[in-house]
Amino acid sequence: MTPATRRRGGDLEAAIFDAVFAQLETVGYRRLTMEGVATAARTGKAAIYRRWRSTDELIADALRHVLPESPAAPATGKVREDVLQILTCLRDTIVACRGAAFRVLKEETEEGKGLLHDVIRDRLSRPIRDLLFQALEEAAARGEIRPAAATRQIADVGPAVIVYRNLTEGDPLTDDYLVSVVDEIVMPIVRP
Amino acid sequence: MTPATRRRGGDLEAAIFDAVFAQLETVGYRRLTMEGVATAARTGKAAIYRRWRSTDELIADALRHVLPESPAAPATGKVREDVLQILTCLRDTIVACRGAAFRVLKEETEEGKGLLHDVIRDRLSRPIRDLLFQALEEAAARGEIRPAAATRQIADVGPAVIVYRNLTEGDPLTDDYLVSVVDEIVMPIVRP
Repeated sequence: MTPATRRRGGDLEAAIFDAVFAQLETVGYRRLTMEGVATAARTGKAAIYRRWRSTDELIADALRHVLPESPAAPATGKVREDVLQILTCLRDTIVACRGAAFRVLKEETEEGKGLLHDVIRDRLSRPIRDLLFQALEEAAARGEIRPAAATRQIADVGPAVIVYRNLTEGDPLTDDYLVSVVDEIVMPIVRP
Repeated sequence: MTPATRRRGGDLEAAIFDAVFAQLETVGYRRLTMEGVATAARTGKAAIYRRWRSTDELIADALRHVLPESPAAPATGKVREDVLQILTCLRDTIVACRGAAFRVLKEETEEGKGLLHDVIRDRLSRPIRDLLFQALEEAAARGEIRPAAATRQIADVGPAVIVYRNLTEGDPLTDDYLVSVVDEIVMPIVRP
């Protein structure tokens, strides 16, 4: 084990956020403590409490750190490529936070809609779902898909399938898997 | 408030299981206690501890109580009706346990696959997914759907969409909603 060196600003913050996701993965949201994060990040509890008053605020900040600010519309001109790029962005974000976003969300919904729920909805679920809906609307306008398929319900199918798979199986969401979701599920639904 | 009367056997058990789901709904899995269940069921803690050693064993039994033993294949001869009946069975079960099954499952996966995970997988997820796959295979054999659509990945789309919706929106899963999932999503995927 390398000795802990004095780290400041960005380095320490990155180590703390990394420790948050590691702790969420190993002990879970319920058992995550400031002390556990401090130990995993090889820093003191005081350094954590100086910036975050509660574990929820710490986790919210860690999530904000990995969740994309606002992903841009791919606008490739092809609905298949647009959908694949947006679902890849969703997959990359799930991987970046080690699946924590949705696991935390599920635990948290028990107690109503709280801080973490809002962070994940505003920074991940809503932008991804909006982009997919927009991609379908543009494809319908181009005559690339049947017009009745440009609905929010159909836009949500890709995320639903990927999140369900991630929660039930927990195996890696490979590029091939994403392609199969687009080609075997999404495209047959929207095809004219 | 009506006075607590002396209840035995089935009545008391039903009251305790009902209290378990009510507690899961209001305080969540993390904060469910034997004491809370006893109070909600208007019985003593001792009555609970006599039968269940831990909250996990109590919740597992409550789930076994509401989850269907092994749902029979509808075999209506029409894939649309088969799929709709199976998804209705899934919806009814989610309603019967007040959505607890999947919320508990999500919390529990944090700590690896435990007792509750096994109960829900064996009594709900696996049977429903198997029945849907079987319905697609039979439909493919009848020439009612395209043969390449009889896959487990496509069989999982209905449950994925319904569970995702239940987790993200939490609004009632109406009959009309189930029909729209079958007609707008599942049928377009499998159509020849």
